[in-house]
Amino acid sequence: MEYVIFGESHGPAIGVTLTGVPAGLELDMDFIQRQMDRRAPGRDALSTARRETDVPTVLSGVFHGRTTGTPLAAVIPNADQHSQDYRDLAHLPRPGHSDYAAFVRYGGANDYRGGGHFSGRLTAPLVFAGAVAQLVLAQRGVKIGAHISEIYGVSDAVCHDPAQLLDLRDKPFPVLDDEKGEAMRQAILDAKAEGDSVGGAIECAVIGLPAGLGDPDAGRNVEGIFSHHLFAVPAVKAVGFGAGVAFSYMRGSEANDPFAVEDGAVVTRTNHAGGVNGGITNGMPVVFEVTLRPTPSIALPQQTVDLDDLSETEYAVKGRHDPCVVQRAVPAIEAAAALAACQVLGL
Amino acid sequence: MEYVIFGESHGPAIGVTLTGVPAGLELDMDFIQRQMDRRAPGRDALSTARRETDVPTVLSGVFHGRTTGTPLAAVIPNADQHSQDYRDLAHLPRPGHSDYAAFVRYGGANDYRGGGHFSGRLTAPLVFAGAVAQLVLAQRGVKIGAHISEIYGVSDAVCHDPAQLLDLRDKPFPVLDDEKGEAMRQAILDAKAEGDSVGGAIECAVIGLPAGLGDPDAGRNVEGIFSHHLFAVPAVKAVGFGAGVAFSYMRGSEANDPFAVEDGAVVTRTNHAGGVNGGITNGMPVVFEVTLRPTPSIALPQQTVDLDDLSETEYAVKGRHDPCVVQRAVPAIEAAAALAACQVLGL
Amino acid sequence: MEYVIFGESHGPAIGVTLTGVPAGLELDMDFIQRQMDRRAPGRDALSTARRETDVPTVLSGVFHGRTTGTPLAAVIPNADQHSQDYRDLAHLPRPGHSDYAAFVRYGGANDYRGGGHFSGRLTAPLVFAGAVAQLVLAQRGVKIGAHISEIYGVSDAVCHDPAQLLDLRDKPFPVLDDEKGEAMRQAILDAKAEGDSVGGAIECAVIGLPAGLGDPDAGRNVEGIFSHHLFAVPAVKAVGFGAGVAFSYMRGSEANDPFAVEDGAVVTRTNHAGGVNGGITNGMPVVFEVTLRPTPSIALPQQTVDLDDLSETEYAVKGRHDPCVVQRAVPAIEAAAALAACQVLGL
Amino acid sequence: MEYVIFGESHGPAIGVTLTGVPAGLELDMDFIQRQMDRRAPGRDALSTARRETDVPTVLSGVFHGRTTGTPLAAVIPNADQHSQDYRDLAHLPRPGHSDYAAFVRYGGANDYRGGGHFSGRLTAPLVFAGAVAQLVLAQRGVKIGAHISEIYGVSDAVCHDPAQLLDLRDKPFPVLDDEKGEAMRQAILDAKAEGDSVGGAIECAVIGLPAGLGDPDAGRNVEGIFSHHLFAVPAVKAVGFGAGVAFSYMRGSEANDPFAVEDGAVVTRTNHAGGVNGGITNGMPVVFEVTLRPTPSIALPQQTVDLDDLSETEYAVKGRHDPCVVQRAVPAIEAAAALAACQVLGL
Repeated sequence: MEYVIFGESHGPAIGVTLTGVPAGLELDMDFIQRQMDRRAPGRDALSTARRETDVPTVLSGVFHGRTTGTPLAAVIPNADQHSQDYRDLAHLPRPGHSDYAAFVRYGGANDYRGGGHFSGRLTAPLVFAGAVAQLVLAQRGVKIGAHISEIYGVSDAVCHDPAQLLDLRDKPFPVLDDEKGEAMRQAILDAKAEGDSVGGAIECAVIGLPAGLGDPDAGRNVEGIFSHHLFAVPAVKAVGFGAGVAFSYMRGSEANDPFAVEDGAVVTRTNHAGGVNGGITNGMPVVFEVTLRPTPSIALPQQTVDLDDLSETEYAVKGRHDPCVVQRAVPAIEAAAALAACQVLGL
Repeated sequence: MEYVIFGESHGPAIGVTLTGVPAGLELDMDFIQRQMDRRAPGRDALSTARRETDVPTVLSGVFHGRTTGTPLAAVIPNADQHSQDYRDLAHLPRPGHSDYAAFVRYGGANDYRGGGHFSGRLTAPLVFAGAVAQLVLAQRGVKIGAHISEIYGVSDAVCHDPAQLLDLRDKPFPVLDDEKGEAMRQAILDAKAEGDSVGGAIECAVIGLPAGLGDPDAGRNVEGIFSHHLFAVPAVKAVGFGAGVAFSYMRGSEANDPFAVEDGAVVTRTNHAGGVNGGITNGMPVVFEVTLRPTPSIALPQQTVDLDDLSETEYAVKGRHDPCVVQRAVPAIEAAAALAACQVLGL
Repeated sequence: MEYVIFGESHGPAIGVTLTGVPAGLELDMDFIQRQMDRRAPGRDALSTARRETDVPTVLSGVFHGRTTGTPLAAVIPNADQHSQDYRDLAHLPRPGHSDYAAFVRYGGANDYRGGGHFSGRLTAPLVFAGAVAQLVLAQRGVKIGAHISEIYGVSDAVCHDPAQLLDLRDKPFPVLDDEKGEAMRQAILDAKAEGDSVGGAIECAVIGLPAGLGDPDAGRNVEGIFSHHLFAVPAVKAVGFGAGVAFSYMRGSEANDPFAVEDGAVVTRTNHAGGVNGGITNGMPVVFEVTLRPTPSIALPQQTVDLDDLSETEYAVKGRHDPCVVQRAVPAIEAAAALAACQVLGL
Repeated sequence: MEYVIFGESHGPAIGVTLTGVPAGLELDMDFIQRQMDRRAPGRDALSTARRETDVPTVLSGVFHGRTTGTPLAAVIPNADQHSQDYRDLAHLPRPGHSDYAAFVRYGGANDYRGGGHFSGRLTAPLVFAGAVAQLVLAQRGVKIGAHISEIYGVSDAVCHDPAQLLDLRDKPFPVLDDEKGEAMRQAILDAKAEGDSVGGAIECAVIGLPAGLGDPDAGRNVEGIFSHHLFAVPAVKAVGFGAGVAFSYMRGSEANDPFAVEDGAVVTRTNHAGGVNGGITNGMPVVFEVTLRPTPSIALPQQTVDLDDLSETEYAVKGRHDPCVVQRAVPAIEAAAALAACQVLGL
């Protein structure tokens, strides 16, 4: 399954085309809409005031409620646009945002309104595509769960059993320890009150992938395949599998996962490897953590450069912005993981 | 430039084919050999006792000392093989290693001797390919440097100027602060003495890539492209760009890199973004850190499973192994970065 | 530039996503619409009675009338649908059509109405994409023209100068020799009168590609790249470059194109090679001919198999069908050629 | 299975890397060598006097005689080189050959000796790769056969049953009708006597591919996949499936293949479609014909241009050349078909 995500924050519509979808899959639109709703803005004090209903229309690839196997296209209209908020962005790039890089990349032709194609809004079609992928995976016994593992230095409880993550899907703020969750929310509100933003991390598990998928080489390597999809989620700046960055202060005797037999199957007693050895799944859950940078759009004044005359100047971002994107990114990370898992399965 | 790395640790030869090499490049074999030598084993007390001269033979793609533009193949013979050390691996997978995953993946047909195609020895052709890529990049003013940023919890000095990293190439143990380097070496020797191993991290910078390369979408995203190449280096388990995992405890006002003008060009005052915004280069050095797991092969006894009868048993790895692969992985990470940078440049 | 064409003949809409479009291109919608109109049905006695206005709506990738460089999506609504004509197709595959192959491929989940995703109607988004590609090419001095070279054994005049083909664009029935064209039309009308259909061929030239593009190897070979796009046009069954199948009765002394110098540039006196030697452009026009099979949907009764009970039966296709698709396929072949030429140029 | 063919006619060696080979396949080196021998030069009066034994050495990807599933590399040394024959080619491009296109493509850095990477000699590693692919296919019940269907206007008997082609493998001159074969050989010898060369065609069948493989869209289309591999075989200039170019003078009632039931399976009574409808296999043999241009290297004097000073001049090719490559190309076409069939099968 390959996907092309299209659209701009303030264009007529956003959407996605999905190719290689297995034929005959019942497209559970309720499930898909629930995933979309988890991501949609305007639901509480933590997110942008922009309201979008985010109801996708399927244009192709579905017949009598089932996938046809030919390309599936879905479109989500853009409704609540305040384009006038963005007039300055044509020449005043926001620090930390893609404005300047995109200006150079596209020779100034990019749609800068609301970040255009770089907007977090583009995670809506990603979540759609990922929901389709999760339906495909469900048929094969593969499930995906995630939690907010950290926000602005506040860590959630350590996840000892990835299966726990599957139950968090209906939580508006998916953490294992709600007290930690409350502290995270407070950190977000504090930042918001000061016109600032915060970063964080999401831990995600893909449960049920059989052992023996992938290859060591570039392009077929399971960790590389996941990263390919994950780094395309806006704000993701780091990806680690299993113990991740903690490997740098571990010894082999501690890091190695002892093999054992359980119900006639080979398992590992620990899962520091995050389910992948040598680029190949080992049958344990594929577990990874992604780090998301703080929202670059903040109300505080920042140093920038006027691209019209290359003068240095100050700029305070106007418009509606999330003080933290981590909680809304959870379904997007699950979506990217689902699309990666399909690729790992050769779908 | 695409590459196929082939070979097994104890087969007749290892090597690489490189396609899409720009034509007419003088193939500086001295430079290439120096890179190969940095990686070669048997140079000091820190590495495996296996000795390989690692002199590549170019079979195609070079004429009169210059690249022809058609596929370049290079072969490195395997010399010092102790295959008998590995007889047990056919049925006793080493914890933390790819043995079990590969056994399932290839139905037991994989060459298990010395890890076969999963051996760290396969970084030799990677370093060859990366050295070719660095020659290509040098013509375009792009340079690459790296240092060992951490080993078993001992951190090198913070790198404030990526240009410093370019000078470390000739150091056998490339760190900015040699006292820290000495502490790292001691940590490795301590682990070795105890039959154990340690993990670590490498920070790498690609200097000179112009702004405006890449795209936000999966497959064209600069961070995704680098990860694609980096996760194929054995032992790499995490990749972070710029501030990386530290973004999770930062605020936007701190994380955002203020724009400024220097010599008529737009720059950023800090480089927390690691040279990439929205998947596109911004003209600052592309800086990233990779975490490498401790060598899984350790002399200490470990729990494993006999694949012949699925009985649980204990196993102590025999043979020659590096107590730490980080120092020898530095040129491999530079190589992967060089190949990634060529892809980002559209080469 | 990569494209995903989506939609089914009787679904809500058809369309295309285009990625990698160069930024800053003025999207001349008049030109695009003219190309779409050349393909649209219902214009004369030769084509199906189905009427579609085929006006595309651009959903993304265009801002202030210029391409942004991020994915461009266009949608064409389906209007004049007569789905009831197709009820039998669920179990009675039409000989020569994709019905049976698709039934097996998609396990019966494909949208069979009007051929679904296999309908000639899907050339509408292809022509859209190709028109965008032609605008990209025009900026680089590359032009494309084509003529109907044969219908049911009636051949057009031999094209001695590919530049002639550029002038045929506005002809409803693009041939060099209108008398031959009249004979072709008569052959089509004769077949129609008998409830039958006819096949034919289209010769196409891409003028202005510089020498030195492509590579001999699979995947980069110019002829392979063109074929990749051309065989995806419905009904195309053969592709030949330059002298094409005539090479099988030629001698080398006749087939070889003598080199000469014209205006300081190397040219060939003849162009039997069709502008490609060894998979690489030689600077002469890239000329090729595609053969299109007769429309499989005919009114005459044919032998088929009822897939419900595997009984042999007879079937006469109902509904509206073109007795010949060649004349309407001309802009589709030009579109595929334009998309191929962009790929050859590395766009 | 993907392959990279490397090497130059007069370099140290030629070879191939194959990735994605299924693990555990017994590598029948006798079969492989027989295929290589069918292609090898110097066997009779029809081919070049160059003698090469063409014995491949496998460097990786095989362990205990079976494929490991990791990249397989094979090398064939170049032995009988007469490089001095080619000194002129650096500046005097041979008409009909790739010399000029390659000169521009690679800026003069290409190895021009004997055509370098463009030499017909590069079909040796292709035949190796194809032989591996045929072993993979044999496990899945898929077989490939081919015959010379035409040389310089002399046609072989029409092949009414593709299974006949499987028996031709051991014939040095694989035709159905040996009298026609004798006439073809005479046409070749006549051309040789006059310092000239001739072109021809090969018809090939892939038998045993199940229905339901492929997709209509570019990149997944069965005809497109085959063409991708076939046009990379030197001298191939046209590819047609089933009735191929004959479709242009057929009616639908004649071209359509009637469905029938045989042994409980859906079949077609004729196979004008060449086993493919709408880009998808229909279960009948995939049959195609390729046209090969006459060998461009001929002894007769030809017009060319001296690239040193752009003066027009005459040139007669020296060295050893085949007056016809068709008979030696048969195993190369089978090899390309085998690699294509593996891709179609998702291998």
